Amino acid sequence: MIFPELIEIGQKAKQAARQLACASTEAKNNALISMAEALLKSEEEILKANGLDVKAAEEKGLKKSLVNRLKLTSAGISQISQSLKEVAALRDPVGEGEVWTRPNGLRIQQTRVPLGVVAMIYEARPNVTVDAAALCLKSGNVVILRGGSEALESNKVLAGVIAEAAEAGGLPSGCIQLITDTNREWVQQLMRLNDYVDVIIPRGGAGLIETVVQNATVPVIETGTGMCHAFVDRDADYEKALPIIINAKTQNPGVCNALETVLVDEGIAENFLPLIGEELKKKQVEIKGCPRTCELLPYALPANEEDWVLEHLDLILSIKVVPDLDGALDHIFQYSTKHSETIITENYTKAQRFLKEVDAAAVYVNASTRFTDGGRFGFGAEIGISTQKLHARGPMGLKELTTIKYMVYGDGHVVK
Amino acid sequence: MIFPELIEIGQKAKQAARQLACASTEAKNNALISMAEALLKSEEEILKANGLDVKAAEEKGLKKSLVNRLKLTSAGISQISQSLKEVAALRDPVGEGEVWTRPNGLRIQQTRVPLGVVAMIYEARPNVTVDAAALCLKSGNVVILRGGSEALESNKVLAGVIAEAAEAGGLPSGCIQLITDTNREWVQQLMRLNDYVDVIIPRGGAGLIETVVQNATVPVIETGTGMCHAFVDRDADYEKALPIIINAKTQNPGVCNALETVLVDEGIAENFLPLIGEELKKKQVEIKGCPRTCELLPYALPANEEDWVLEHLDLILSIKVVPDLDGALDHIFQYSTKHSETIITENYTKAQRFLKEVDAAAVYVNASTRFTDGGRFGFGAEIGISTQKLHARGPMGLKELTTIKYMVYGDGHVVK
Repeated sequence: MIFPELIEIGQKAKQAARQLACASTEAKNNALISMAEALLKSEEEILKANGLDVKAAEEKGLKKSLVNRLKLTSAGISQISQSLKEVAALRDPVGEGEVWTRPNGLRIQQTRVPLGVVAMIYEARPNVTVDAAALCLKSGNVVILRGGSEALESNKVLAGVIAEAAEAGGLPSGCIQLITDTNREWVQQLMRLNDYVDVIIPRGGAGLIETVVQNATVPVIETGTGMCHAFVDRDADYEKALPIIINAKTQNPGVCNALETVLVDEGIAENFLPLIGEELKKKQVEIKGCPRTCELLPYALPANEEDWVLEHLDLILSIKVVPDLDGALDHIFQYSTKHSETIITENYTKAQRFLKEVDAAAVYVNASTRFTDGGRFGFGAEIGISTQKLHARGPMGLKELTTIKYMVYGDGHVVK
Repeated sequence: MIFPELIEIGQKAKQAARQLACASTEAKNNALISMAEALLKSEEEILKANGLDVKAAEEKGLKKSLVNRLKLTSAGISQISQSLKEVAALRDPVGEGEVWTRPNGLRIQQTRVPLGVVAMIYEARPNVTVDAAALCLKSGNVVILRGGSEALESNKVLAGVIAEAAEAGGLPSGCIQLITDTNREWVQQLMRLNDYVDVIIPRGGAGLIETVVQNATVPVIETGTGMCHAFVDRDADYEKALPIIINAKTQNPGVCNALETVLVDEGIAENFLPLIGEELKKKQVEIKGCPRTCELLPYALPANEEDWVLEHLDLILSIKVVPDLDGALDHIFQYSTKHSETIITENYTKAQRFLKEVDAAAVYVNASTRFTDGGRFGFGAEIGISTQKLHARGPMGLKELTTIKYMVYGDGHVVK
């Protein structure tokens, strides 16, 4: 039995989607700007609600890094408000497309249209509530939000403020809805709500994503998990290799495009490993090494199978010596989560082979894996990074929140 | 517990996909031509196996229309062989894409690549075995085929012949694999084989597709079900309306883009209904009407709720009189499966409203819904018609069997 309250949310969303799909870009932009202003005006209320969440999280003994993600400040609210204005300034993909005419005169116009109703399931990061709503709204989609329960008080105020501003700005009621019941059964039902939800996007840790993939009947866009590798070829320029590895591992180790494993060509292992080892030590990075690595770096700890499989998301780096490019390709084939992979080499043919043969959303030559990001790719915004192959792959911007529709212009055409 | 034989198929497919993704268009085309020739050479063997299937189906008392779909003839085999050559002649989407350069000099190249391993689940139509394999192979995808058990003997020979020809033509072993065990548990396991299968495409009746959507954890592309409507506006030109309705309903009533419901504007009901009624009678089409329709057409049977919901896929047409365009839009909003919808009108504004407000893969003005088809849209081929919004919508050609990969060219780039 589906909760009647959830059906009500679904029906309201579907009705709103019907209207929102036809809203002009101007109307959507005006609403986004109203939302930005409303957030600034409600700062006090938002900080108060957020304070309750933070206090409860601290009392529950939540990890410091999670409490930090949860915490909002006056500057943070300004930034969220500013990001709404930036979304308003982005190009609206809805209505773009191409057209062709068939020999019989039938004119076929392939046009971008909103997906319809998008459900977002995410963890306790209140900024996602506003970001996701803004991107969905700009692309003409209605959004149903289900954030982590630790952020509930913050989300209630945030979603309430922006939903009200959107409606006051002329958009249909029900464009932005937040599920406030923390019973997990709601999430289970939401991911099977095919009559009302067009797409579900889970954003968060591997556990959350796996749960959605295993249980959803609504089409899912998987995001996130990144077991990213760098292969340092025997023809690498160390002046590129060292900064790239340090950047990819340490600039922000908790994110999905951070580096987890370095594969080093046997031909340079003796030479290169002590150099990178020193740099990693300076940055307090713990090394988990294959036997050959441990031989060359006495301070490395022996790696076990798990170190090749799981994201550390921390200042820990797994290092393995491989015979050559083929050895690296085999390791990546076996362990990659198909997010981001990079080769460091000056050799043209090996660079091209790596680009072609590695199956991942983003494949790099001589660059940090940390670039896999909607903003850094030039998309202006990002709703997540898809690690699946259907619909969207890699950073997803506004275009990835749309689908197409064929509008066909006839003049009494029938098939023969 | 997954069957070890299925894991073996999956592993073989994944290995083959790794190689096939890098195969040149020339190599794939040569293999397709070898496959076409091998089919002609094996005609006798194919007809013999097909004879066994047909005989068993007749003995089991299978419906005549289903036996006809199952049956192969010498001419049919020539046609299947010819279609392989046509696929060889199509443009290969793999490797196409676009490129841009970021302000920091990083060059990002968005490139089409194969999906990887595609699983097709379909009913007892042996031609699908060859068509699906050809389209997958051309787009660089490995295919795992699971056809209806009634076609098993035919499929064994067909898949065997083309797989052998592909391999002899230089493509990796395991590109085309057929599941020959008719135990339904295989299908259940196949749709949860996330480690080896990238996409699953069910092709067939509503029951099959529903089973896959409900049970798959592998990403699905839904195809098929089409509850298609035509709205005859008060400003319609009857000389267009009558032939379009007759064409959409009767040209091939058993397919998903055939017309199921006609909505007639109250303003012309008295005038128009007797005209279309006469035409439908001539074509032996049974009419299921709303009360107003039954009033105007004494030979119409009263429609019940099911007649608005279910595809008849037969010479039966539901007709409802609606107050106006808004009434038609409301009915379509409620009952459409979002496949193909058409409006017959000479009124510009109503045509534009229909195109914009109806949410479906294909929306027509003054044309038959039967045009929703890869061939008729100019795609050259079709693997199915997607009725979902993710990844592909409407007719799916070769491009829809690919995904993208970002190839990023750096020169020691790190993020700031």
